[in-house]
Amino acid sequence: MEKKTVAVIGSGAVGSYYGARLAEAGHDVHFLMRRDYHAVSISGLNITSPDGDIRLSHPKIARSSNEIGPVDWVICALKATSLLEAKNLLAPCVTEHTRILVLMNGFGLEDRFAAWFEAAKIFGGLAFTCINRGRPGYVHHLGYGRVTIGHYLNDRNELANALSLWKETRVDVVTAPSLLKARWEKLCWNIPFSGLCVAAGGITTDKILADADLRNSARILMEEVVRAGNADLRSHGENVSIDGPTMIENMFKMTSTMGDYRPSTMIDFVEGRAMEIEAIFGEPLKRARTLKIDVPYLSLLTAILRSLNRERK
Amino acid sequence: MEKKTVAVIGSGAVGSYYGARLAEAGHDVHFLMRRDYHAVSISGLNITSPDGDIRLSHPKIARSSNEIGPVDWVICALKATSLLEAKNLLAPCVTEHTRILVLMNGFGLEDRFAAWFEAAKIFGGLAFTCINRGRPGYVHHLGYGRVTIGHYLNDRNELANALSLWKETRVDVVTAPSLLKARWEKLCWNIPFSGLCVAAGGITTDKILADADLRNSARILMEEVVRAGNADLRSHGENVSIDGPTMIENMFKMTSTMGDYRPSTMIDFVEGRAMEIEAIFGEPLKRARTLKIDVPYLSLLTAILRSLNRERK
Repeated sequence: MEKKTVAVIGSGAVGSYYGARLAEAGHDVHFLMRRDYHAVSISGLNITSPDGDIRLSHPKIARSSNEIGPVDWVICALKATSLLEAKNLLAPCVTEHTRILVLMNGFGLEDRFAAWFEAAKIFGGLAFTCINRGRPGYVHHLGYGRVTIGHYLNDRNELANALSLWKETRVDVVTAPSLLKARWEKLCWNIPFSGLCVAAGGITTDKILADADLRNSARILMEEVVRAGNADLRSHGENVSIDGPTMIENMFKMTSTMGDYRPSTMIDFVEGRAMEIEAIFGEPLKRARTLKIDVPYLSLLTAILRSLNRERK
Repeated sequence: MEKKTVAVIGSGAVGSYYGARLAEAGHDVHFLMRRDYHAVSISGLNITSPDGDIRLSHPKIARSSNEIGPVDWVICALKATSLLEAKNLLAPCVTEHTRILVLMNGFGLEDRFAAWFEAAKIFGGLAFTCINRGRPGYVHHLGYGRVTIGHYLNDRNELANALSLWKETRVDVVTAPSLLKARWEKLCWNIPFSGLCVAAGGITTDKILADADLRNSARILMEEVVRAGNADLRSHGENVSIDGPTMIENMFKMTSTMGDYRPSTMIDFVEGRAMEIEAIFGEPLKRARTLKIDVPYLSLLTAILRSLNRERK
């Protein structure tokens, strides 16, 4: 394995977990830390996981990206609500050969990174996982964990390059031939389930499946997302499309295996934190409207979620 | 003025207020009381109101309708969530000549009363008012107060009969030539404003007007209600219809004069009580679906509100 230097920008639960897996596999991983810097400098970074616990006694941690400097790979795992800080946080780590994996929730994020840096450098990562932060320095990986990676220009060689970084880690990584399609497919789950879990008062995904009204609302939201996604793919000249009925059936089937799952947006909601509403709902809605796709459920849901998110930080 | 015997069934804020106005005007008013019986038996019934305070030192109060017996008029001001108790609560007060005013929120209520008693006896009352309960025995009327009364069979003589009851009270009472139209018109306000004030997290009506997304959602909800209402009026062979654009403009104009108004459903929501979701949302939605009117916003809103209402009493 070729050892790479990696900067994890945004060492929340997701950044810490996947960064620790890269370090475990032998890469030279630097974590940009805020809240947990002091605790980790004393007690290390501690991950509990069904795929094997990790304890990094002395991980390389930094309080600023300048301390890290140029790397081979940047893993950007900021919360989408901090998107505007991303450019300055990443810049010191990015040189000509650096690659950037945007391991964040939401839609249209890679467009920003491609504008700030260079399109060919940019990858999107879609983590399907359940990870929570514990006390400072502790992260709990509860289940799942697969990461789907797409390249901003859908370049196959670049995808192979990305795969090689993860090759000897314990992370199940797959590549997506179309990043845009992968993002829309993720929204097919995130919009109905994260959205309704919040709007219906902070409930778990099993409650949506068990309630005929909410289940039907979830289905209609998925249908809207599929229509918008396919229109978007067409508008980008991509020669792929989402098979709505199959996708929807799979999403319901998968969700039924998840039990009383708490989407991260719902956890943010019940714990009083800012939710990633614009990235997950607002941007796809804007795109659907631009494409003149009628998405009434998404429109109302987004209006409600924006209101619930007001004045949160 | 002809003095009438009146039974107020459901002496919450609305029943107590309008019953007190009838007593003030000289009618023989009996209040069926639960929560406040003891307090009122000691301290009387006390109303604060911009239209003049009322203090009834020794109002006629009863713990059961049997104690009241037959009356000229029943004012049923139960919460719609107690609808199933209404038949038994009213029965002892109703004889051949009794008239029943259903002074409740919601849609389709009069159909039930007409089935239980006799269609010709049934009136619907739509109170446009802001009244809260205070401590036991105290009711605070904060503003507005007009009552629109329609007759279940739209009988003009019956409407004149109803008007005469209120003639010498301080209540502004108007009659509606079509009760069904009046109910749908009320829903044009209640569905968007009560619904969004709850779903958006327990906010006041001014917040909906001030937020472009929510304001637009309110408008679309009104458009759906107008379409469903007009289809319902046609299906009943009623030769009237709601003028959508004018209605919507008036609703927004009126709401803009209301300031930081808290709809009763929103007050129920933030205070943890059961909300009148089926009466205000579920029944109109069912009607719209029967009539094959597409109401996506109302469908999603109702699903969310039902979930928020679950397990409340």
